[in-house]
Amino acid sequence: MTTQKDTWTIAGREFTSRLMVGTGKYASFQQTAAALEASGAEIITVAVRRVNLDRSKESLLDYIDPKKYTLLPNTAGCYTADDAVRTCRLAREAGMSDFVKLEVLGDEKTLFPDNEELLKAARILVKEGFTVLPYTSDDVIMCRKLEDIGCAAVMPLGAPIGSGLGIRNPYNIRIILESVKIPVIVDAGVGSASDAAVAMELGCAAVLMNTAIAGAQDPIAMARAMKLAVEAGRLSYKAGRIPRKLYANASSPLDGMIV
Amino acid sequence: MTTQKDTWTIAGREFTSRLMVGTGKYASFQQTAAALEASGAEIITVAVRRVNLDRSKESLLDYIDPKKYTLLPNTAGCYTADDAVRTCRLAREAGMSDFVKLEVLGDEKTLFPDNEELLKAARILVKEGFTVLPYTSDDVIMCRKLEDIGCAAVMPLGAPIGSGLGIRNPYNIRIILESVKIPVIVDAGVGSASDAAVAMELGCAAVLMNTAIAGAQDPIAMARAMKLAVEAGRLSYKAGRIPRKLYANASSPLDGMIV
Amino acid sequence: MTTQKDTWTIAGREFTSRLMVGTGKYASFQQTAAALEASGAEIITVAVRRVNLDRSKESLLDYIDPKKYTLLPNTAGCYTADDAVRTCRLAREAGMSDFVKLEVLGDEKTLFPDNEELLKAARILVKEGFTVLPYTSDDVIMCRKLEDIGCAAVMPLGAPIGSGLGIRNPYNIRIILESVKIPVIVDAGVGSASDAAVAMELGCAAVLMNTAIAGAQDPIAMARAMKLAVEAGRLSYKAGRIPRKLYANASSPLDGMIV
Amino acid sequence: MTTQKDTWTIAGREFTSRLMVGTGKYASFQQTAAALEASGAEIITVAVRRVNLDRSKESLLDYIDPKKYTLLPNTAGCYTADDAVRTCRLAREAGMSDFVKLEVLGDEKTLFPDNEELLKAARILVKEGFTVLPYTSDDVIMCRKLEDIGCAAVMPLGAPIGSGLGIRNPYNIRIILESVKIPVIVDAGVGSASDAAVAMELGCAAVLMNTAIAGAQDPIAMARAMKLAVEAGRLSYKAGRIPRKLYANASSPLDGMIV
Repeated sequence: MTTQKDTWTIAGREFTSRLMVGTGKYASFQQTAAALEASGAEIITVAVRRVNLDRSKESLLDYIDPKKYTLLPNTAGCYTADDAVRTCRLAREAGMSDFVKLEVLGDEKTLFPDNEELLKAARILVKEGFTVLPYTSDDVIMCRKLEDIGCAAVMPLGAPIGSGLGIRNPYNIRIILESVKIPVIVDAGVGSASDAAVAMELGCAAVLMNTAIAGAQDPIAMARAMKLAVEAGRLSYKAGRIPRKLYANASSPLDGMIV
Repeated sequence: MTTQKDTWTIAGREFTSRLMVGTGKYASFQQTAAALEASGAEIITVAVRRVNLDRSKESLLDYIDPKKYTLLPNTAGCYTADDAVRTCRLAREAGMSDFVKLEVLGDEKTLFPDNEELLKAARILVKEGFTVLPYTSDDVIMCRKLEDIGCAAVMPLGAPIGSGLGIRNPYNIRIILESVKIPVIVDAGVGSASDAAVAMELGCAAVLMNTAIAGAQDPIAMARAMKLAVEAGRLSYKAGRIPRKLYANASSPLDGMIV
Repeated sequence: MTTQKDTWTIAGREFTSRLMVGTGKYASFQQTAAALEASGAEIITVAVRRVNLDRSKESLLDYIDPKKYTLLPNTAGCYTADDAVRTCRLAREAGMSDFVKLEVLGDEKTLFPDNEELLKAARILVKEGFTVLPYTSDDVIMCRKLEDIGCAAVMPLGAPIGSGLGIRNPYNIRIILESVKIPVIVDAGVGSASDAAVAMELGCAAVLMNTAIAGAQDPIAMARAMKLAVEAGRLSYKAGRIPRKLYANASSPLDGMIV
Repeated sequence: MTTQKDTWTIAGREFTSRLMVGTGKYASFQQTAAALEASGAEIITVAVRRVNLDRSKESLLDYIDPKKYTLLPNTAGCYTADDAVRTCRLAREAGMSDFVKLEVLGDEKTLFPDNEELLKAARILVKEGFTVLPYTSDDVIMCRKLEDIGCAAVMPLGAPIGSGLGIRNPYNIRIILESVKIPVIVDAGVGSASDAAVAMELGCAAVLMNTAIAGAQDPIAMARAMKLAVEAGRLSYKAGRIPRKLYANASSPLDGMIV
């Protein structure tokens, strides 16, 4: 068994945990903090538009130790490139981070990304020196364009935000993994532990989720489940699984199956 | 988060680990022992026909601490009820256990169970006081018959032994879970960590595997991956996952999806 | 394009249509007759227990031209081998047919077959000279046993009767096709046209359905849809589909995918 | 059974066949013509860059009766908006058609669309009076943007061109169908008859394919299989399929399952 550390990096920063978590939709800041703790996450996303940046009253930021976590401000609620760019600048001015999770949504109903606006925003933000992690579709060409622009990672969705449908098209994720060199992080769609494990078994660098934990009946237990699932999936990927066969004595493996 | 112990029982014996592992196909007894340790399993199966029962020379049993593990002799390699019954008696005479994992295979190629012979053997063994855990198809009626006979658990396959195809028909497993009261243990078919998590998320009591670990490129790492995956899947099941929806704001959940 | 006739045979009788249909659950005998006509079926199943055999009053049989259709009496509603055998003898005495579709159900809730009782009944009926077409699980060993007993075909389910879930485990159907020489007919589970096409593309000889047609909002239209789907699936199978690949220029085909 | 005609329209033109076919990759023009005939297609796509427009020597166009088929010039082989726009103008000048199937590919390896360039080209072509049918990803927001631009239909892919993987993400197709009012035509990915039927059962207006027919071992037989499959799938959709249930007597349908 490999005993060397299995770390990964974004833009030169090294991380051990491969589970990134959001901070929305919890019952209280206390519950948020407990779930973060249980998840073992090192990187947590915070919606710039929803957090009280001036700290004049109680804020999520009071519950998050900036020494312990890497804060990743996100542009949740932005529907145009302009909005998203402005939001990122605001986060930087407030001293949050140069790392941003870039979301430009296409509509309020499905929360799918608007990739045309996303590209525009990414181009501007990269030029302004931000480390950009864009939330996008499982679209191979978009992911490569985002890499070419200079994004630090790509974050294709597994399924719509909050849907809990898991990774609906692992074939696309696999082609994305073949097509880009920057870290691929599955963002959105995870519903249960096995979904998170599947993301890691495909070879993704990490997985990001929010609703799956915050919306569970017991968010703290689910945070721990996801921590273990991501570790399990990563270990399973590295341990080298047996080939799939129709039955053990079948002469040829079923190379085509993905999940 | 629930902090009470999450144990389960077979025939009055209580267990904490929900991962049961086989002991075949390893490179050496040392590797077997290390994989068992990494898996955290409490119940391990041993093929009666393949172990050196008289201990005249080196035996797998020299590497397994009977105080630490519950040994579950299995009838691997038996193709008739008579053979299987004889093998169980032999295990009992050798002092191994009254607990038996009952396998009656239908052929050497696919290793599917012969359920007609299985029922015959189970009826005899239950009458003789064995605690019988039968390996069977994902056949709802067979599972209920095995319960009616007095088996202590049912062990439907997820996919053929050694295939690594995962749980091919979660719908059947779900109906089996609705239909019997004894523990349902998915046996055979698991290939990767996510497969094991799926079994637990369906609500199974435990999962049993051998090839997925022993046949991995790094069996010890895979044993640990499976340990974590089973814990993750169980926790995910108990934590109460979010409902599946076409998208988060869809009015109705997708109750029908299983995995 | 092959222009030779593409027929198949059961016990020496030759058929062209590969769609077999049931006659239950229709709104009226007129609707039944119209659906049969639209389906193009040559073989139709009739529940011996539900048809008025003595013809004293209006009967389904008044609406079915015995010169046009091969009647296949079935033992729907039988839960033991004895019941099923008795029902077959009754059908023979009434002059219906020596061909029987043998069903022995395990319970009223799921309508899954009881394969232990099925084997018993099949052994008796074959000895008595019946041509037996047994409804069974997608269990490879059971199918082979039924072939060994002398059944004329095997009819594994795609999914539970009336579920409309399609072929839940095409891997099992594929192994059954590899394992027996008699015709394999998918029976039960079909919900839509594509399900029927999948059965044929797997290489099955035929497909049997009832609820999918009788329970559709427009049964006559659905009967025609199923007729076309079975022809489409069969033609697609024979025409030799392109290999599956991750993308067209991928170097190796994805042999493992089945559907 | 509904006897009224089941037609559909693009930009005011009415069609009966819902199978659109490409004309590339055949062994000969004779084979192309025979496959078109067998497919029953009314709309056929022709790669502007690959057809001999000046007719100085033998051309595919010699084999296609323009009175019988609606020719849909496509921009296969174009990798930028400029290229694609130029190609459409060329087709118009050559008198081919104002209807164009707009393809702007992202790379030669995967043949996935470049949706950013596609939007650019679509905006220009719509302004120039073309009737634009764009090939795109199964990306809901892109499809809506293409509708807003004024495209006459959207053509999301089922899977990569030539992959034969079928409709990998029916959930996305379903959300696209909910989100746009123009016809949704699944383009690319179909491998077998059941794939085509699935597209129609989801409620798509039509399906377009090329490799699945031209690359089959018997293209003419496969063309006929696809004709029947599209008719079967459409009829099945209109006939109103039975609800999916875990088993027939289950109290609630499985609304969430899509295929």
